Amino acid sequence: MITLTSDFGLKDPYVAEMKGVILTINPNATLIDITHEIDKFDLRAAAFTLASATPYFPPNTVHLAIVDPGVGTERRAIIVETTKGFFIGPDNGILIPAAQNQEIKSIRQITNPKFSLSKASATFHGRDIFAPAAAYLDKGVHPVEFGPKVNDPVTPDFAKAKLRREYFHGEVLHIDGFGDIVTNIPGRVTHFDEDKPVQVEFEGESIKIKFVHAYAESKGSEPVFLLGSHGFLEIAINKGNAAERLHLRTGDKIKVKSV
Amino acid sequence: MITLTSDFGLKDPYVAEMKGVILTINPNATLIDITHEIDKFDLRAAAFTLASATPYFPPNTVHLAIVDPGVGTERRAIIVETTKGFFIGPDNGILIPAAQNQEIKSIRQITNPKFSLSKASATFHGRDIFAPAAAYLDKGVHPVEFGPKVNDPVTPDFAKAKLRREYFHGEVLHIDGFGDIVTNIPGRVTHFDEDKPVQVEFEGESIKIKFVHAYAESKGSEPVFLLGSHGFLEIAINKGNAAERLHLRTGDKIKVKSV
Amino acid sequence: MITLTSDFGLKDPYVAEMKGVILTINPNATLIDITHEIDKFDLRAAAFTLASATPYFPPNTVHLAIVDPGVGTERRAIIVETTKGFFIGPDNGILIPAAQNQEIKSIRQITNPKFSLSKASATFHGRDIFAPAAAYLDKGVHPVEFGPKVNDPVTPDFAKAKLRREYFHGEVLHIDGFGDIVTNIPGRVTHFDEDKPVQVEFEGESIKIKFVHAYAESKGSEPVFLLGSHGFLEIAINKGNAAERLHLRTGDKIKVKSV
Repeated sequence: MITLTSDFGLKDPYVAEMKGVILTINPNATLIDITHEIDKFDLRAAAFTLASATPYFPPNTVHLAIVDPGVGTERRAIIVETTKGFFIGPDNGILIPAAQNQEIKSIRQITNPKFSLSKASATFHGRDIFAPAAAYLDKGVHPVEFGPKVNDPVTPDFAKAKLRREYFHGEVLHIDGFGDIVTNIPGRVTHFDEDKPVQVEFEGESIKIKFVHAYAESKGSEPVFLLGSHGFLEIAINKGNAAERLHLRTGDKIKVKSV
Repeated sequence: MITLTSDFGLKDPYVAEMKGVILTINPNATLIDITHEIDKFDLRAAAFTLASATPYFPPNTVHLAIVDPGVGTERRAIIVETTKGFFIGPDNGILIPAAQNQEIKSIRQITNPKFSLSKASATFHGRDIFAPAAAYLDKGVHPVEFGPKVNDPVTPDFAKAKLRREYFHGEVLHIDGFGDIVTNIPGRVTHFDEDKPVQVEFEGESIKIKFVHAYAESKGSEPVFLLGSHGFLEIAINKGNAAERLHLRTGDKIKVKSV
Repeated sequence: MITLTSDFGLKDPYVAEMKGVILTINPNATLIDITHEIDKFDLRAAAFTLASATPYFPPNTVHLAIVDPGVGTERRAIIVETTKGFFIGPDNGILIPAAQNQEIKSIRQITNPKFSLSKASATFHGRDIFAPAAAYLDKGVHPVEFGPKVNDPVTPDFAKAKLRREYFHGEVLHIDGFGDIVTNIPGRVTHFDEDKPVQVEFEGESIKIKFVHAYAESKGSEPVFLLGSHGFLEIAINKGNAAERLHLRTGDKIKVKSV
């Protein structure tokens, strides 16, 4: 099984070209799209999406992810082998958080031309290098055959939430399609008392909101605080768009305490 | 075979997480997206789309549909077994019109934790309850194993078109991507004389338009009336957007007579 | 294997209805979407997309493409057999460029009702005629069984780039999701000296830009000229939108020379 994640969108032929290449090499591959609607060149969104979705896939899945502003330059093409499966993409950090969730065994650079299209373009490595590599890997080719070991992968330095005094200091990790505001504060570490409201501060504002378990506990259209399905704390409005209402965007700073 | 319908959109990892869960339980499942672009929380659109698409799928298909504003509350998770296949989703009415097209045999609540993810979140039952249920059902688990019978499913009360004097009184059921206005007037019951134009009245306007068989019979850019592919009467403009032109939206009242 | 290309979008049930029909007839078909986001009725975009993506698919793939403003009229439904595979769609030119890439063996009209849904609508031949034909063809039915030979297919007359004096005169073929401007000037024929910049003229403007190999060679946000992954010359801005910056749109005239 091979999953695909990219910022190519669904209108252009790019995604289909990658799938055609994979199925030519490996006609039995099962292909599952994670998304192709990552904001163009948004490495953090790619890393977040990949880390969110991949834990739910079976062992030995090959996860192909391409958000690749450096295509055609010296940046490396890599395969990350974990204890559960494989990640393929550019060496720009997008694979690492998802791979770390599964414990990394080794990282290899893709240099063996045997596993690439014969005339690789300088503009579309997704089709010419990454897709064939995914197809061969899914077919059983061992990672060592693709190229040399990589000891210094580019590792993203995304901000982590920190506890300082009684506040968790974090930031907005993602705004989903419902307008729910996903923070980078992991639910499992905060030990907030879920019977008490929280004080949320951002951009000069300070609001006190209820801690709930389900979106539908938000009565009327007031924002609520809850543990989202990715394991991070979220601010949401039931049937409403919390991000629009609170004017919060990805990357905005936020701090939270139980009150 | 399992179909998927939701309001999750294609940008977030939610749909992929559901597919990963299904394929972990049932690696041989064939997954077909109906759509994930239902307007957020629009139960009627979900019901319409599901009822439109599902008649074309093979027997024993499992149709998974999740538009679920009540997630995490007391609303039930159900499996509807019909003479042709299965429907899985929240007990909020979205499954019923499609299931009624196939004759309902029984309805069961999903309560058996054996067929859910072990740590079900309160925010994403699509992934944690509905997707595993679909995977097990497609694998051959019998509906009785999931939980107790449901005798009082939530049944939607969508407006039906009615004949009063010479007018059919209906409403706009759906605006499709071409701007075609799908009414809730079923073509098979109206017995309009297709050689005669129709008078269409809405929002204080009254227009006389031709009854045609194909979009391309619309000359220039005048609206035409025709029997659409879902079996309902439609107003369309060839290569134009009828809904924008006539300022009609889903839910607007409309009445029609042969003239 | 069957690919699908259309202007149906992903919100309406149309694409799913086609897939349901195919899988009812041929449960083992592998279905791959090329795109369903072709601009409504844009025959040239359909032809371009199909010709771009199809070279990457395996032999014997059936390519189903439906952008069909003439549905329900006298326009023919056709199957084009090439030395590599099959193309199915309306006889309006969208299949021809992609099929010509593979050398056309014969063209047949689909007239045999045995291979259509029993009650074909006049509004949705994608579901009622083309999808069943694709399913049967993929199952091994021979093209001769579908209907009579077509000797005069509608062949599109898309503008080709021409060399006049030192200038290549072409036009904008496609703007992709990144804002890259794909021209209709094929890279393999121009013999531009890639060490020299090019002079690009359009809409009264004249700009001198660098010829590069990869998007990332564009420093700052200046436009660059390069050979794109489809084999055509492109104007792009690294991490920027060249089409918006230069106000260029599909169909705009452009001329280019090495300077």
